[in-house]
Amino acid sequence: MKSDKTKVKRRPDRGFYDKETVYAILDKEFICQIAFVFEGYPVVIPTIYGRKDDSLYFHGANVSRMLQTMEQGVPVSINVTRTNALVLARSAFHHSLNYESVTVFGKAKLVQDDADKLEALKIISDQILKNRWSEVRLPSEKELNVTKVLKMTISEGSAKIRNEGVGDDKEDYDLDIWAGLVPIHRSYGEAEPDDKLKSGIETPDSVKSIENEEF
Amino acid sequence: MKSDKTKVKRRPDRGFYDKETVYAILDKEFICQIAFVFEGYPVVIPTIYGRKDDSLYFHGANVSRMLQTMEQGVPVSINVTRTNALVLARSAFHHSLNYESVTVFGKAKLVQDDADKLEALKIISDQILKNRWSEVRLPSEKELNVTKVLKMTISEGSAKIRNEGVGDDKEDYDLDIWAGLVPIHRSYGEAEPDDKLKSGIETPDSVKSIENEEF
Repeated sequence: MKSDKTKVKRRPDRGFYDKETVYAILDKEFICQIAFVFEGYPVVIPTIYGRKDDSLYFHGANVSRMLQTMEQGVPVSINVTRTNALVLARSAFHHSLNYESVTVFGKAKLVQDDADKLEALKIISDQILKNRWSEVRLPSEKELNVTKVLKMTISEGSAKIRNEGVGDDKEDYDLDIWAGLVPIHRSYGEAEPDDKLKSGIETPDSVKSIENEEF
Repeated sequence: MKSDKTKVKRRPDRGFYDKETVYAILDKEFICQIAFVFEGYPVVIPTIYGRKDDSLYFHGANVSRMLQTMEQGVPVSINVTRTNALVLARSAFHHSLNYESVTVFGKAKLVQDDADKLEALKIISDQILKNRWSEVRLPSEKELNVTKVLKMTISEGSAKIRNEGVGDDKEDYDLDIWAGLVPIHRSYGEAEPDDKLKSGIETPDSVKSIENEEF
């Protein structure tokens, strides 16, 4: 996936171009930032995605400006970033973050067939919450008709990862300044049932599998 | 801050254009996704920022392609998104997320004067960890010389917020399907001192103020 556009130049040791690394980071998240050029200006918007093989799927209302622009096959750039720790050095200069970040490029096209649209929506649903799709009322014909689904095949991409301790200049280790990491944790909390939930309906397996779990 | 570019069209009730709302979201985070056009292609990259008044500050190595592009005064678009809960409806169609998202537009310019650069770097440092700047070894002349600092005045922007429960279609409330929210929490963990920390140096106030805190 390495190209002139995706090559990590300044710290080549932090760049990764293999699909395994890039896809593993994409698979931990479900929101990306997607950038495209609209009337000459860059626009960046957050959106939900699902990955299957070399493709990312997006969905939204038919009237979405982002999707209407993307379906014309314009180039798009997508970033997903996880921030895992503050890296606090003795010097201001060597402060950093531990993170995993992926940027991919490609062009999207409209998914038109209803069966393909449903399959794509299931991929997106699974990306957010595995197996939720099998528990819910699936989209009606009318709902499908007002939903736009796009498929983008990843043409280039790279990951950039920092996962290290503090790196200070040699002479700064003598300073009486605290240095270390502060990890960042993210987790799902306790599920909060809808006020109007019918009595006797238990928390489903999909939700139980993520409750109070880090991700 | 409302303009044709920033107007939330489909769900106008979720759009906010006042500085107070936009800046409150920006002030909760310190990483944004920044998009610009490079050789005709959109590029989106994560970067650290600091906000003061109507300006965002960015920094990086002199050789950074992103900064080299931005300092030419090209239009950039920036997004910051916080995801606060999964919204699990009875129907696949009404699944959603609770989130707070800001997109702003502007053009950046180089901060050249050393005093102004230091001030901007302090703003960025404070955005990540308040008062850390007063605890560390400040940038040397040499470090300042290899660091590029940009200032972007926000010309337009908007926030989009969803902070509600489940909204299903009337007829779906009779279904035997669980619905509710799963909150997402993010917090700092326990600080991990650097292996090479001199003995007798205690965790500083800046770090104590965030340890085990949600943000």
